Amino acid sequence: MKQCGVALYGCGTVGGGVAEIILGRRGALADRLGSRLRLLYVVDKRLRELAGELDLPPSVRLTDDLDEPLRDPDVDVVVELLGGKTVAASVIEKALRAGKDVVTANKALLAAQGTRLFGIARESKRSIAFEASVAGCIPIIAAMRSAMVAERVESVYGIVNGTCNYILTRMSEGALPYEEALSEAQQRGYAEADPALDVEGDDSVHKLAVLARLAFGVEVREEDIYREGISSIEPADLRYAHSLGYTLKLLAIGIRGGDGLELRVHPALLRHGHPLAAVGGARNAVCVHGDSVGEVVFTGLGAGRWPTASAVVADLCRIALKTYQREFSELPQFAEVPRARVIPLEELRMRYYFRLSCLDRAGVLARVAGVLGRHEISIASCIQQDQALPGEEHVTVVFMTHEAREGALRDALAEINELDCIDGSRARMLRVVDV
Amino acid sequence: MKQCGVALYGCGTVGGGVAEIILGRRGALADRLGSRLRLLYVVDKRLRELAGELDLPPSVRLTDDLDEPLRDPDVDVVVELLGGKTVAASVIEKALRAGKDVVTANKALLAAQGTRLFGIARESKRSIAFEASVAGCIPIIAAMRSAMVAERVESVYGIVNGTCNYILTRMSEGALPYEEALSEAQQRGYAEADPALDVEGDDSVHKLAVLARLAFGVEVREEDIYREGISSIEPADLRYAHSLGYTLKLLAIGIRGGDGLELRVHPALLRHGHPLAAVGGARNAVCVHGDSVGEVVFTGLGAGRWPTASAVVADLCRIALKTYQREFSELPQFAEVPRARVIPLEELRMRYYFRLSCLDRAGVLARVAGVLGRHEISIASCIQQDQALPGEEHVTVVFMTHEAREGALRDALAEINELDCIDGSRARMLRVVDV
Repeated sequence: MKQCGVALYGCGTVGGGVAEIILGRRGALADRLGSRLRLLYVVDKRLRELAGELDLPPSVRLTDDLDEPLRDPDVDVVVELLGGKTVAASVIEKALRAGKDVVTANKALLAAQGTRLFGIARESKRSIAFEASVAGCIPIIAAMRSAMVAERVESVYGIVNGTCNYILTRMSEGALPYEEALSEAQQRGYAEADPALDVEGDDSVHKLAVLARLAFGVEVREEDIYREGISSIEPADLRYAHSLGYTLKLLAIGIRGGDGLELRVHPALLRHGHPLAAVGGARNAVCVHGDSVGEVVFTGLGAGRWPTASAVVADLCRIALKTYQREFSELPQFAEVPRARVIPLEELRMRYYFRLSCLDRAGVLARVAGVLGRHEISIASCIQQDQALPGEEHVTVVFMTHEAREGALRDALAEINELDCIDGSRARMLRVVDV
Repeated sequence: MKQCGVALYGCGTVGGGVAEIILGRRGALADRLGSRLRLLYVVDKRLRELAGELDLPPSVRLTDDLDEPLRDPDVDVVVELLGGKTVAASVIEKALRAGKDVVTANKALLAAQGTRLFGIARESKRSIAFEASVAGCIPIIAAMRSAMVAERVESVYGIVNGTCNYILTRMSEGALPYEEALSEAQQRGYAEADPALDVEGDDSVHKLAVLARLAFGVEVREEDIYREGISSIEPADLRYAHSLGYTLKLLAIGIRGGDGLELRVHPALLRHGHPLAAVGGARNAVCVHGDSVGEVVFTGLGAGRWPTASAVVADLCRIALKTYQREFSELPQFAEVPRARVIPLEELRMRYYFRLSCLDRAGVLARVAGVLGRHEISIASCIQQDQALPGEEHVTVVFMTHEAREGALRDALAEINELDCIDGSRARMLRVVDV
């Protein structure tokens, strides 16, 4: 039976799961695959700790020497689960040059250096597989690469950060303030001690950069993507949105427009009944619109030890079968592709929700409506609180607009927030996604 | 640039779409693929009709000679979209023996002769690709074959017949009787003039046979699968189900049990909130439960010219890339696999809904409850009509049971239907799916 030697770099949550699947399911995997994955090295700094934790057979060498597996000709594939960018990039680069294929879940690294690393892989006649980098167990990378290869993708967008989705779901269901929902997510292990990468949207930006490259065949860099996180969302917005018929989700959005691509990560209102609106908790979901297939939606667990480890092992299997290498070397998405032409956010047209804190006085609405009118923004609906709460002199007014230009809306809001009857510090704006 | 010569057998709705994609999108496909699909033959009986309809370039030969393309060494792949079994099987067999790979959407043929045809393909060192045979544009075959190769699949089930789903959706939303919903589906082109294959469940049985082979690595024959269609569903059942918190769908279900597989196609009640409950109209959806990935759900258009044609072209692309041939020759699912061990339906345990027509008389419920009790079936809830409708002497009573053995339930219902206070001809039973 054919063998495929594996060196695993980084044996944390996901890496430990990968080791367990390869070792614990040797027989079943070989049966399904017709060849055998052999775990030869586990590379990690925490030697003593892991030696106690892991029950490795003698055939697996535990080491903290980053270079040793790269010199071993029995190693066919390097799995990079170190995270971070500097050491990870160096391991991947050396592995490729040493003739090893690479599997990684490192979306931050791919977003920053994907083109360079893909180039090294092609030069070295090797491949980089990265199914686990986006949406855990949802085979969206395979779908983009292979199942939808005949499609002209019109849009790809989705919920790709389970932490944020968990927080927003709890804020909505439990009417919790942001900080409480976040700390609940941390207690349950969904959020890191430092949650900034998740809640500020960076993680979703990285994933969108990876997805958009495959979907649209262009190079997308982090700085091409507009980013807005969820940390300033208030339960009131979820409540008002709900009463207007919407659910709030953090979305990563790529849309083919006339003059280029829309690329953006931000909290977005989805009408109830939209296929992503009901995706709650830590689940992920991705919608793809193709010109032939129409809308296809993929839903599943986006993170966690087992779903992510399963995606890594699926990549290992494709490499053991030698199918992935062919796709990687043949498909132009992995070669040098043109840089994405991005439509500036200001020029996009969509619908908006905004919430204002107004002095409870006659004529205020007329002044707000006047500013909106001058900027050619028309109001679709409006919810106004009956009267100010005790101890408050402001009332809340919520507007939904018809489609408007982002630039115009921003100018109008800036002007409105300067009005003496408005408490500008408490204004909030959210975008509606109607794809 | 590499070339891949294609002969298209059958140029109806889907075949015409395939020809249009290959011809109309030559440049884009070559860009995305790094090699070129060349349509060389269109084989169809309707020569005169098609010559008028199709605008084929001179490089494409239109013929009704089934053998001519098989003698042409430039033809690399045969696309079989003839439908039916006899001619289709013969074309596929000859094509494989002539050294051509095959793409087909023919689930009825694969369900009946998959093992034999796969065997011929492996003998001939060729492959049979069949993404378009199940759930149109949803890449479920690719997911089973490749993305989930590392998984132990616990269950795969879904809505795989768009016609039935359209009919049930309309019966539910519009409170239409079955015949009206069916004729609406026919007017809209969702249902054939003879809808039996769809509405009696055969089409779903064929698709489940194909899916279950990949998911569980066993041979599944049509006769292994319990089949029950939707033609005797009444709007009243959808209404009662709704008020109990359920939606009715025709499901194809494969579940790994202790002693074998559960394989069944029947109308099933899904609790509101289940990921498949909201999938309406002609859409399809498939849920897969794997031991690592948890639940993954795929949703999209399951039929129609473009989604199905897109799936065929995706298979052609995989063959042009020569990745599919490797998977087909290496993965044991395509080789001889053991025959499925199927758990008899009578031994399964699930929850049931049933609706009785009872004489409006004291003591009737007690007699029904007595029979259920003797068969160890306990009632979870019950809806009873207040009184008989004018002109009727019967009232409707609806029961939901706790989990019970199918055999016991059937025995109990047979006994109940014999009671003199029950109109047995009007009794209905539906299964609840709690996966």
